[in-house]
Amino acid sequence: MSNYYSQEIHGPYQLINIGNLNLYEGGVIEECFLAISTFGKLNSEKSNAILIPTWYSGTSKIMLDAYIGEGRALDPDKYFIIIVNQIGNGLSISPSNAPEKIHGKKFPKIRICDDVDAQHKLLKEHFKINQLELVVGGSMGAQQTFEWSVRYPDFVKRAAPIAGTAKNSEHDFVFTDTLIEAITSDPAYQSGDYENSKQVSIGLERHAKLWTVMGWSTEFFRAARHQSLGFKDIHDFIANFMIPYFSEMDPNNLLTMAYKWQRADVSLNTEGDLLSALRKIKAKTYVMPISHDMFFTCQDCLAEQKSIKNSQLKVLDSIDGHLGLFGTDSKMMEQLDLYLKDLLLEI
Amino acid sequence: MSNYYSQEIHGPYQLINIGNLNLYEGGVIEECFLAISTFGKLNSEKSNAILIPTWYSGTSKIMLDAYIGEGRALDPDKYFIIIVNQIGNGLSISPSNAPEKIHGKKFPKIRICDDVDAQHKLLKEHFKINQLELVVGGSMGAQQTFEWSVRYPDFVKRAAPIAGTAKNSEHDFVFTDTLIEAITSDPAYQSGDYENSKQVSIGLERHAKLWTVMGWSTEFFRAARHQSLGFKDIHDFIANFMIPYFSEMDPNNLLTMAYKWQRADVSLNTEGDLLSALRKIKAKTYVMPISHDMFFTCQDCLAEQKSIKNSQLKVLDSIDGHLGLFGTDSKMMEQLDLYLKDLLLEI
Repeated sequence: MSNYYSQEIHGPYQLINIGNLNLYEGGVIEECFLAISTFGKLNSEKSNAILIPTWYSGTSKIMLDAYIGEGRALDPDKYFIIIVNQIGNGLSISPSNAPEKIHGKKFPKIRICDDVDAQHKLLKEHFKINQLELVVGGSMGAQQTFEWSVRYPDFVKRAAPIAGTAKNSEHDFVFTDTLIEAITSDPAYQSGDYENSKQVSIGLERHAKLWTVMGWSTEFFRAARHQSLGFKDIHDFIANFMIPYFSEMDPNNLLTMAYKWQRADVSLNTEGDLLSALRKIKAKTYVMPISHDMFFTCQDCLAEQKSIKNSQLKVLDSIDGHLGLFGTDSKMMEQLDLYLKDLLLEI
Repeated sequence: MSNYYSQEIHGPYQLINIGNLNLYEGGVIEECFLAISTFGKLNSEKSNAILIPTWYSGTSKIMLDAYIGEGRALDPDKYFIIIVNQIGNGLSISPSNAPEKIHGKKFPKIRICDDVDAQHKLLKEHFKINQLELVVGGSMGAQQTFEWSVRYPDFVKRAAPIAGTAKNSEHDFVFTDTLIEAITSDPAYQSGDYENSKQVSIGLERHAKLWTVMGWSTEFFRAARHQSLGFKDIHDFIANFMIPYFSEMDPNNLLTMAYKWQRADVSLNTEGDLLSALRKIKAKTYVMPISHDMFFTCQDCLAEQKSIKNSQLKVLDSIDGHLGLFGTDSKMMEQLDLYLKDLLLEI
């Protein structure tokens, strides 16, 4: 396992073996393990649990640092908060840490519903939890949140998908393709047979540059938000923030997540009928796009939200765009906390 | 010269030798030639000329097909319309058609002001024109339009920069970097020493995919505009429209234009002071962003327009985004014609 994914950097986290996981595209992951971090205490009725799945490239660490805290909506004094790392992120089972049989490029294709099934097993069998107060996550975490609400409608009392959609758009599929190709086009990637991430640094740098273009917003750079974050100009921002952020991540891990991201689609539960899928949702749902998100746009989120019964659209205002998810805009994070506190009131 | 740039496909056009062109970054293009197409008749006072520069990858052909016509704003019955191909586009002097000494990768670095100087020479020396009724262009054509207005303020009575800015943004610089790297990262590009465009097809395909993501808009695909244009889905649209569009273009030509595009900046005329540069503009100016443009955004255009004395912001409404410039949205083209007709009224 690469040192980047160590407990020193991303922990503490526990590894929970959930046994065999049958996969949507066929095959099975034997002795599948999920890396989780928990905060607060599960009450005796097991009725105060909140689940937080992670986004592309993210781990439990950023969710703890940016989203959880005493007095905040996600308050460990009130709730038992489980942050679950998505499969492929380098902490839960992933190309970089899987047993030899499915290591690296031999890792199977995973879908969002596989993550949700794995998490469902974790909650039922490991924690004996039968219902969640809330599922909340950003980006691919939102994709998992929607999948939870459709696949296990009685399990989810409340849902807060942030900056993500229930069915990925064609436009977003192609954006993700460009991210994938930035990596795979590096000759050093060698169809996944590289020895370490450093070898694929040129591909990872192109990947970071694409994230710079689509991850924030045109307005973010015009308003010199990158300068107010401490960087001289956009080139300094790329060289000393965007590239270092991604450079130590394992390419096969990123590609495993990208594949899932592209194909996120709750209508796989209803034979391709998106409306039927969204109508299955029982959770009180706040759909929360970020105003300046360039790929999970407000319009795309609104189009789905309208079909979810007990839902409201709560736009988070920030020129930081999609990567405002990092918590860079304190005002947006305050707005998010207000919405989440409101959502968590008695139903 | 590749057959793609032939008169059969892009003509008819004339090649005008404007003599030596001194370049902003140093050096000179000897016997520089510009490819132009003209429509209508220059009146005896030489007071009815309109100049149309071209955008990245575009030639005079698309400007004729989508923008000019009897009864339209750009009416050859009223005006003498000169469409001038930008340097590097494959029709005017370019890496692909230059003499051996500066052929291919040996072609010098060109800036927007070099194009404008070349066009100024063309108008003064070849046509003996001293003033233009209007300069109008989209994208890099808008960059040239702004440069014209700042560099030769008495020459330009009216200006209509569409979907472009006077000073390129940092964000757009990086987007263009990703286009450049899509091509140059193809091992077959060989630092510009490839034999023909087909060899660099993988790089050109990645370049086309990036254009798919940023060139239209998320809303364009959500509204299935690509389907209404006759394509089954986004993949069909990429394979049978976006990739074929770019696939025959010469990579060194594209890179010559991309370099110019990135560095477009009217403040090079005023020692880096953008406000001073914009205040030099005397032309009656309609700044015309496209509502859903993902990289030359309305906000960026508005920020500049506010500093131009005799100007108005005229937003073109279209979910087709930047590539609405192709004329795909007939309602937007009608709106454009109304604005241009209004602009062309007596001052």
